[in-house]
Amino acid sequence: MRLRRRLIGVIGSSVGTPEQIYLARAVGRLIAQRDAVLVCGGMTGVMQAAAQGAQEAGALTIGILPGANAAESPPNEFIEIPLFTGLREARNYLIASVCEGLIAIGGGYGTLSEIALALRLGKPLVLLHSWQFQIEGELLSVPTADTAEEAVERLWATLG
Amino acid sequence: MRLRRRLIGVIGSSVGTPEQIYLARAVGRLIAQRDAVLVCGGMTGVMQAAAQGAQEAGALTIGILPGANAAESPPNEFIEIPLFTGLREARNYLIASVCEGLIAIGGGYGTLSEIALALRLGKPLVLLHSWQFQIEGELLSVPTADTAEEAVERLWATLG
Amino acid sequence: MRLRRRLIGVIGSSVGTPEQIYLARAVGRLIAQRDAVLVCGGMTGVMQAAAQGAQEAGALTIGILPGANAAESPPNEFIEIPLFTGLREARNYLIASVCEGLIAIGGGYGTLSEIALALRLGKPLVLLHSWQFQIEGELLSVPTADTAEEAVERLWATLG
Amino acid sequence: MRLRRRLIGVIGSSVGTPEQIYLARAVGRLIAQRDAVLVCGGMTGVMQAAAQGAQEAGALTIGILPGANAAESPPNEFIEIPLFTGLREARNYLIASVCEGLIAIGGGYGTLSEIALALRLGKPLVLLHSWQFQIEGELLSVPTADTAEEAVERLWATLG
Repeated sequence: MRLRRRLIGVIGSSVGTPEQIYLARAVGRLIAQRDAVLVCGGMTGVMQAAAQGAQEAGALTIGILPGANAAESPPNEFIEIPLFTGLREARNYLIASVCEGLIAIGGGYGTLSEIALALRLGKPLVLLHSWQFQIEGELLSVPTADTAEEAVERLWATLG
Repeated sequence: MRLRRRLIGVIGSSVGTPEQIYLARAVGRLIAQRDAVLVCGGMTGVMQAAAQGAQEAGALTIGILPGANAAESPPNEFIEIPLFTGLREARNYLIASVCEGLIAIGGGYGTLSEIALALRLGKPLVLLHSWQFQIEGELLSVPTADTAEEAVERLWATLG
Repeated sequence: MRLRRRLIGVIGSSVGTPEQIYLARAVGRLIAQRDAVLVCGGMTGVMQAAAQGAQEAGALTIGILPGANAAESPPNEFIEIPLFTGLREARNYLIASVCEGLIAIGGGYGTLSEIALALRLGKPLVLLHSWQFQIEGELLSVPTADTAEEAVERLWATLG
Repeated sequence: MRLRRRLIGVIGSSVGTPEQIYLARAVGRLIAQRDAVLVCGGMTGVMQAAAQGAQEAGALTIGILPGANAAESPPNEFIEIPLFTGLREARNYLIASVCEGLIAIGGGYGTLSEIALALRLGKPLVLLHSWQFQIEGELLSVPTADTAEEAVERLWATLG
């Protein structure tokens, strides 16, 4: 009987900056080195770079896609397990729900929704050059990181 | 044949501050005066105050609830149409999706997720004493307001 | 404070036979006469006829639509409250979940899925010229009806 | 770069008969021998037997669970990748959506909903000692099978 696997998400934009792409690939590699499964939105940009890094280092990669099939939302070439949800933006919830912890890299409103849902669900989360948010001047205690190594280390420190 | 109705959402915490409760009830009343249907999460706090204001001014009120029935998630007493989704936090997506426009008042991570999903779906949205967020120093152009009147006016100015 | 409303669903094909259309409109009318809100999938065929009957008799009509907006899934003209879910076929679950009881008239696989989900969720349900199903020769005790009147009476007899 | 994997679902009751359990384990084994990933609802009964057969023959096993975590819905011990959706019965839709083809073994209303959703989504499907259904006397052309071997062969014959 094989052990149940740990699922870690990397969330970010489908159009990453060169720096975000570099960070995502490094984060993917480090997640693989810790024997976790890489979960992402399955598309281009940060999602693709994270899947590439993870697959290059031997990890299983899962893409939770908005479309109902590959014609509607083509998975990037580093996704081994594409999950075609057909739920479009509602799939953002699923990414937050199925992961044990997540790292956010940059990102648009979709990424912000995944960050918020992950925090709402009480998931460990580290922000890497990503959104900053506050309400009524209150400082929030979401962990941040400056490098891929620091992000992965901080995330693992908060996992059960 | 009756006309199709306009659905406007008010999102915010189930534990609002007195100021947020005051604002939510006023916003609900103003939405009713513009002949729209009030949509909210159906629970306590800001959701209840918005439904109360809307119902007092004659509007239909819809609550999109996380639980599968009233025992799991009791609707507040001002909800005329409770929609028991059974989807828990995934129902946040639905609130953003079914509304033509939304006003956010204060709020926690759940509200932040609804704000982000609404923006991702391209819905008109006004922030009223709610979240502020930025990424990589970029200023975002989400409309804000200081009073209930201003929030409703700004929202209606952006509706089709 | 107004009373919470009872939501009753009518499910069936977007391309009904003349007999199904006749039955759906009659069922819609009878649901309205019992002061319930009519819920359906919001589209053509059986859904439209049920909404028409309900609206003609004064009821509020809710359409739970697969698309994200009216361009993607135009509501029929008798839907007063269109709920654009953007969830496509996953919206079938929602129809079963939000209704207190349902009547199925004819229907395709979508309707069969709604019937099965309603039964799975323990919702009162009456089949009117609709699917028959059995497993391993076991007879199932889902109530059936031959007329609109009988369907509505049988449904109300099982509501709480 | 590794190839994208084929996902095949086995659906059935959490309380299977001895014959269904035997069939499910055999089907799981045969799916593994054809190098596909086994997808199921992750729980006991038919789901567990299918995962056991697949894992024994070397396949990756994915469980799409109703609960938000292992406390809410414990995966069976043969699930390598548990996906905690938190969507409860709405997760039935996901099982139908993410699989390229499915085999139904026995089953209750939950399984019937998955069968109907799979057919609605146009997924290849084989019924193995499972539901029979008809409408208005019309015979439906859903493929059936009597043995595990026949079920898997018939399914593969209809995959693209």
